[in-house]
Amino acid sequence: MEIIDDVGEFGLIARIQARLPLTAPEALVPSGDDAAVLAVPDGRLVTSADLLLEGRHFRRDWSSARDVGHKAAAQNFSDIAAMGARPTSLLLSLVLPGDMPVAWVEEFADGVAAECAPLGVIVAGGDMVRGDVITISVTVFGTLEGRAPVLRSGARAGDRVCVAGRLGWSAAGLELLAAGTPGHSDFLLAHRRPSPPYAAGPQAARAGATAMLDVSDGLLADLLHMAVASGVAVDVDSTLLPVAPGLRLDQVLTGGEDHALVATFRPGAPVPESWQAIGTVYAGPAAVTVDGKPWEGPAGFSHFGKQ
Amino acid sequence: MEIIDDVGEFGLIARIQARLPLTAPEALVPSGDDAAVLAVPDGRLVTSADLLLEGRHFRRDWSSARDVGHKAAAQNFSDIAAMGARPTSLLLSLVLPGDMPVAWVEEFADGVAAECAPLGVIVAGGDMVRGDVITISVTVFGTLEGRAPVLRSGARAGDRVCVAGRLGWSAAGLELLAAGTPGHSDFLLAHRRPSPPYAAGPQAARAGATAMLDVSDGLLADLLHMAVASGVAVDVDSTLLPVAPGLRLDQVLTGGEDHALVATFRPGAPVPESWQAIGTVYAGPAAVTVDGKPWEGPAGFSHFGKQ
Repeated sequence: MEIIDDVGEFGLIARIQARLPLTAPEALVPSGDDAAVLAVPDGRLVTSADLLLEGRHFRRDWSSARDVGHKAAAQNFSDIAAMGARPTSLLLSLVLPGDMPVAWVEEFADGVAAECAPLGVIVAGGDMVRGDVITISVTVFGTLEGRAPVLRSGARAGDRVCVAGRLGWSAAGLELLAAGTPGHSDFLLAHRRPSPPYAAGPQAARAGATAMLDVSDGLLADLLHMAVASGVAVDVDSTLLPVAPGLRLDQVLTGGEDHALVATFRPGAPVPESWQAIGTVYAGPAAVTVDGKPWEGPAGFSHFGKQ
Repeated sequence: MEIIDDVGEFGLIARIQARLPLTAPEALVPSGDDAAVLAVPDGRLVTSADLLLEGRHFRRDWSSARDVGHKAAAQNFSDIAAMGARPTSLLLSLVLPGDMPVAWVEEFADGVAAECAPLGVIVAGGDMVRGDVITISVTVFGTLEGRAPVLRSGARAGDRVCVAGRLGWSAAGLELLAAGTPGHSDFLLAHRRPSPPYAAGPQAARAGATAMLDVSDGLLADLLHMAVASGVAVDVDSTLLPVAPGLRLDQVLTGGEDHALVATFRPGAPVPESWQAIGTVYAGPAAVTVDGKPWEGPAGFSHFGKQ
């Protein structure tokens, strides 16, 4: 088996680059110089960064290299969509052990490339360093295409709370993996490769969404971020929630990592097709309730112990 | 001693943010939402990313937390300067062990902030994750202010090769640290906190530099990158090199991490004040020579085994 130490770091960079989309008209200076130069015709750059660590954000025995590549790109693209923007390019930095199979890294790159392809996103640069723990650092760039960004802080009393995308699927998949139970393959796949509703972000922005964010920690936890930033109370109507067959309500309310989008729309404003109403914004101290009451069920997984 | 686990990740983020420059008119949406939105009035973004790992790029017994903060920012700003651009903002992502002193992270943030301050650079976001090895991932952004970027690939036969900044100082400091010898404190300081000649980058661009890069791996190694990218041969005149008292020629030729800038200028073109000529570009297969001969002295430290 060929390992990274066999090909060296420059060799590995060449092998990865061969699999990634590196050029596009907006890459005025692509990867390979001291820095990249990217066209930003909108005059405003949308940018975010995420770290993924082996053992903490993925396990090599639970996810394929390709899955991890998809996930690293997807969770970053979702942050861009949540601003009402479209992802355009990314920087990819990797810490990799020298005794890792080159094939893992190549398949990881294939996963990143496959997530980039339908969106036309390119990889504009990055860094690579030898180290003991696989660490993936992605910085993503996006364009607002002339639109105003949709912040967390714009929700107002009377707004409808709407969601686009899946809730609870990834958490259900993680539970199956942790239990060692073969189960609903759709949930396993959703955990390994989130499929955020990228187009729903710009769609919501065009429809006048007042606030928006990406559900990464769990619906209730992330709605609380919105409630705090906006200074409002949010109530979720459990009868409106999309609870897929095989899911429990607590998974839908608290499961993270599906990267659904949550947005608020003025009452009476038409809600775009991929969005569905799940609750209402009220005046009052920042809080999130379910059917008018605090949620007292299981809290689910939270990266930051914030719930 | 207060450790990270005592304050939690949100607590730590608040403590770090209190020490970093977070706002400026160009931060249209600062850190705190799903993504930041930055004004890019030039319409072109210059961007680069670097990883620093404890044990590989710094040691806590050799460098203070503040030193590491300075260095993490400086090596990224240098990549921007090497394009002829000015750094404007950065994203900072950290992997930190839970049992680390909070004070280390605060002092690290102070170092980043101090390196940002004279340049007016702000921190627009990032990520923080618990893990076993301190890992610092910086993405830096810069502006060309209307200028053309200066690439590695523009050197032409007849050009003068010039340098701005120090050569060999960091390598000499590292040797002293490795030997456990108390020695020239300027070299130790140069290793702990590089001071790249940021202003010399835009200065060279305005003066019509044909090619430019940042000396991170060592003068000869990085000149070879330029020679390969430009398809030219480069000869260094050792009598013109700035060999500071106490340094050896091999340290000046092969020592990395000072982040000097090397640029080429058309013959006869005036060379800006902070630059000094050290060699000449010739037509011929890509190669770097010293006084007309291949360098056969010690190769110095190279991150990538490239020399």
